[in-house]
Amino acid sequence: MNLAILGMGTVGCGVVEVLSMNKSKITGLIGEDVTISHVFVNNIHKERDVDLKDAKLTDNIEDLYGADDIDAVIEVMGGMEDTRDILKKFLEKGIHVISANKDMLAKYIDELTEVANAHDARLLYEASVAGGIPILHAIEHGLNANEIHKVMGILNGTTNYILSKMTNDGWDYEKALKESQEKGYAEADPTNDVGGFDAQRKIVLLSRLAYDRKVDIEEVPVTGISNVELKDIETAKKEGLILKLVGKSEFDGQGLSVEVAPVFLPADHQLSSVAYEKNAVYVNGNAVGETMFYGPGAGGPETASAIVSDLINCWRNAGRKQFNLTPQQTASVKPSQSSNKYFIRFNAAEADVKAHLAGLNVEYSVVDADSGTTVVTSPIDPEQLEKLKQNREYRIESIYQVEGD
Amino acid sequence: MNLAILGMGTVGCGVVEVLSMNKSKITGLIGEDVTISHVFVNNIHKERDVDLKDAKLTDNIEDLYGADDIDAVIEVMGGMEDTRDILKKFLEKGIHVISANKDMLAKYIDELTEVANAHDARLLYEASVAGGIPILHAIEHGLNANEIHKVMGILNGTTNYILSKMTNDGWDYEKALKESQEKGYAEADPTNDVGGFDAQRKIVLLSRLAYDRKVDIEEVPVTGISNVELKDIETAKKEGLILKLVGKSEFDGQGLSVEVAPVFLPADHQLSSVAYEKNAVYVNGNAVGETMFYGPGAGGPETASAIVSDLINCWRNAGRKQFNLTPQQTASVKPSQSSNKYFIRFNAAEADVKAHLAGLNVEYSVVDADSGTTVVTSPIDPEQLEKLKQNREYRIESIYQVEGD
Repeated sequence: MNLAILGMGTVGCGVVEVLSMNKSKITGLIGEDVTISHVFVNNIHKERDVDLKDAKLTDNIEDLYGADDIDAVIEVMGGMEDTRDILKKFLEKGIHVISANKDMLAKYIDELTEVANAHDARLLYEASVAGGIPILHAIEHGLNANEIHKVMGILNGTTNYILSKMTNDGWDYEKALKESQEKGYAEADPTNDVGGFDAQRKIVLLSRLAYDRKVDIEEVPVTGISNVELKDIETAKKEGLILKLVGKSEFDGQGLSVEVAPVFLPADHQLSSVAYEKNAVYVNGNAVGETMFYGPGAGGPETASAIVSDLINCWRNAGRKQFNLTPQQTASVKPSQSSNKYFIRFNAAEADVKAHLAGLNVEYSVVDADSGTTVVTSPIDPEQLEKLKQNREYRIESIYQVEGD
Repeated sequence: MNLAILGMGTVGCGVVEVLSMNKSKITGLIGEDVTISHVFVNNIHKERDVDLKDAKLTDNIEDLYGADDIDAVIEVMGGMEDTRDILKKFLEKGIHVISANKDMLAKYIDELTEVANAHDARLLYEASVAGGIPILHAIEHGLNANEIHKVMGILNGTTNYILSKMTNDGWDYEKALKESQEKGYAEADPTNDVGGFDAQRKIVLLSRLAYDRKVDIEEVPVTGISNVELKDIETAKKEGLILKLVGKSEFDGQGLSVEVAPVFLPADHQLSSVAYEKNAVYVNGNAVGETMFYGPGAGGPETASAIVSDLINCWRNAGRKQFNLTPQQTASVKPSQSSNKYFIRFNAAEADVKAHLAGLNVEYSVVDADSGTTVVTSPIDPEQLEKLKQNREYRIESIYQVEGD
């Protein structure tokens, strides 16, 4: 079996490493040797730590289009429209494609799936969501007896690292961000991570698969963590609440509510103990109830685990009609209609806050009066919440949803 | 597609319920309607809450052997050799078999797999381990790029419920057992659960699949929870340790160490927050590192989720060569060679314990001197541990392994 790899960064090298490290098991499962026959990179002269001696190394994608001996393509190079177009060419030839490119897939997966189905090819992308956690496989196969109505996850390791440092070690946001950059978790421009956009792409891919609906990423609201203040984390911690950047979606068969935002979780919630760079995805199905899948969200061999498993699984199915989920309907995204608890800090004196809240008929308790009056409310519905926000007599300094158990 | 169900208790009824509740999704995935054509039960006159009107209900298994229109069999009736023999008859005809029968499978799976492979049938058994958690599927497909070297799980809901009640609510063992019987978690004779035998069967099935080795259940040591004392749980809790009944196995490519025992875990370990009747399985692979899978360990629709997913997955693979893992080698089970921390309570005065431990060159700290002298040691190797246990000058009242992070 001949394999082409597009891109040879951390994850590409991880794939080479895993294929070599577990060669005997992988060969046994696939039924033949896997040869990396082609590698496409920008710079063919760059020193790399992996042995690519059997591969034709090229910076010209036409070399791969011309080859007639490629059985599967692994795409770990990033990029948007150009990459989509390249992958289409392979799918059109019936070549299986495995991609870790969440940015591109969150936007173009429906288009690519159509091409794949028309040519009996498989498009697999386990590594694009939650790194090494086999969550797409779990949704598509392990839990496929269920109608799924809720998916919720810690989908970005960088932000989880930053929030964990703030929560566990009392670091402020800037210090935690700086360290995560030094450790290589966050990029020099951390916007994609701390702005919540990376998690947004992942919750789009998860929701599409879980609910069998196309999801327009432009419709998914995102709040990042760059405005999170340490004092809110510390106040909430005393109340048994832990702040996590959560991608969450709920589907009732009609409307989809989906969002990325920092949310307070009860300390004994399964997701609360997911710390530092780890990821986890919670899935609720109508037969199985609550499940959760935990593991590494990034890393070379960790992400390669998902890629190589995709490779094994699509190859073991070779010879039969390939099946890629192709949602026919687009989900209508709507704001959540459910009542939620909130953690709110006001820039107003306790007595004033109490007076205003009394008028709204909201139950709450004051949990801190020192750092601005901070309250945790009982569940309030979206309409009441809107009224509370529009009040002119005080300003809300910070507001977070509090997720139930 | 015609389905025969053997047994119609809680799980059997759950299967009927899930097939009906999610009919449209399941039909879409399978590509045709699923009809429950035959149901085999002991008592055909018993009132049942589910609609079996399309099915031929019989207490004579020969009726099913005679039928030539059964495509798959779901076995949820329990039993050992008789059930094995019945399932063999179906497999010999190339009929796929899905079983939730861990007791029988832990002993006879290799025998059944051989028959299945010889007749191109699939033998699936997701529901036999950790209820609705798709853990076998994760090991076999989601993580198959990895060599797995450790599997560890909370595999029995009844004992986890009892230990959670003791830990969280300060109940003693007898009270917690009684309530779990009243709630229907534990049977009148709770030996299978509290003796650890149910977890033993599950760690055998998990280890076999994870390491591709036959595992002789007779070789797997088991310690149950019926001698657990509340005071040890309470002492350890103050030290940030939580007691769980853990099925654990480690494989280094040669020897397999496997055991079921109550073990103390750090409170921030992922398995520690798995409370009451929930199950979870931790898997460590050489590419992905640490992963964990959490969900319901029992229940009608919950377990049926696993069974119906097995049904969908084997049917979607119809027409191609069926593949059942068939380990060729038997694992040589050996005691763990790794150094572990221990929680130990002695019936001796603190000064005496200190004097004895000093002679053994063991690092430790005394965590409680009131309820017998209780210590937590630093890692000590098996040889040292043996010396410590064989000392004649004091008695060890209780001893538990302390698992690292």
